[in-house]
Amino acid sequence: MYSGAQISIYPMTDDFVGVIVGALSALDPYRDRLQVETDDISTLLVGAPEVLFPAMRDLFVAAAKSGKHCVLHATISRGCPGEPDDAVCYTTEYGGPVLPLEQRKQMALQAVQSAPVTDMASAAQFSLYVMDTNDHMDEIYGCIDFLRQSGTFDRAKNFCTKLGGDAGAVFATVQAALCRFGPPEGHVTIDLTVSANSPTVR
Amino acid sequence: MYSGAQISIYPMTDDFVGVIVGALSALDPYRDRLQVETDDISTLLVGAPEVLFPAMRDLFVAAAKSGKHCVLHATISRGCPGEPDDAVCYTTEYGGPVLPLEQRKQMALQAVQSAPVTDMASAAQFSLYVMDTNDHMDEIYGCIDFLRQSGTFDRAKNFCTKLGGDAGAVFATVQAALCRFGPPEGHVTIDLTVSANSPTVR
Repeated sequence: MYSGAQISIYPMTDDFVGVIVGALSALDPYRDRLQVETDDISTLLVGAPEVLFPAMRDLFVAAAKSGKHCVLHATISRGCPGEPDDAVCYTTEYGGPVLPLEQRKQMALQAVQSAPVTDMASAAQFSLYVMDTNDHMDEIYGCIDFLRQSGTFDRAKNFCTKLGGDAGAVFATVQAALCRFGPPEGHVTIDLTVSANSPTVR
Repeated sequence: MYSGAQISIYPMTDDFVGVIVGALSALDPYRDRLQVETDDISTLLVGAPEVLFPAMRDLFVAAAKSGKHCVLHATISRGCPGEPDDAVCYTTEYGGPVLPLEQRKQMALQAVQSAPVTDMASAAQFSLYVMDTNDHMDEIYGCIDFLRQSGTFDRAKNFCTKLGGDAGAVFATVQAALCRFGPPEGHVTIDLTVSANSPTVR
């Protein structure tokens, strides 16, 4: 099943090009398992979720370690109709029979608990969209229940959920949301924003 | 029906706070018809689409007129289950009987043609998500057909469609996509990124 993201990094500094170029080497350990394609708006990363999320995390952390206020935005998708399947997207994260919602919540919580620590504090918000099903709100409420127990939950906002904490746990939370909720073969997307070093008081 | 957006402006400059603060007065003509609520990640705007999109456009153009590379991101939603209805969201843009897809395409094209000119060149990309329907891809393909005729179409990308042109036409295109496609009472969302003054060659 095709999966990937359109990602952008926004360093709020005159040297935004330098910050981005300086962070790009963070993608090197993942490049053999990702397709990468850049234009003036975003960079397309195509690959399995277990590669995609660590790659986004490491790129974001590398940019944020500049100390500048940095934001990563990602439009993430799995199972989009009309997108070709691709071997680079092969994953064991989903597919197969649908497990009970409660079991999927526990798998999601375990994934967040075992996430690596990056020592980069972050704030994030995301929206999970589940298409092709008439009970999509059940999956979303199940996901929200996971989020409230995840340790990264900040608060519910209109149209999205706000997270906070170490970037390792935050990206693991969003990865689990994509992989554990919605039909295994369904079309599920996420609109994700992650921020570091904001001068704005929470 | 509840409608609004979580929006963020990213000016790629050391003086990002100054650019944002300097642009905020662009919202003044709309404030009596919008609810506005800001935190460290985004600003919530709640209101009808015919107020929301011009407000986002004018805010973006005001920031971009700084000459700095500026990006606006918006998570836009209408008809989200669980959100309260609100009088500020009353609109004549949708609701009522479902019109034939071809007629809605024509209404969308007319809206783009009559959009005001802002003299701010922009590039944009967005994803349209239609929930709660088993034929959501029909609505999306109908929308793509409108986009190809809109005059702002740049190209199809994985997970999104890229637009370009005057910011007036670009925001009118996205507004028409939200209002004219998907069920009138349905849950429809957009993940939108608009950029100006990028140093990257297209």
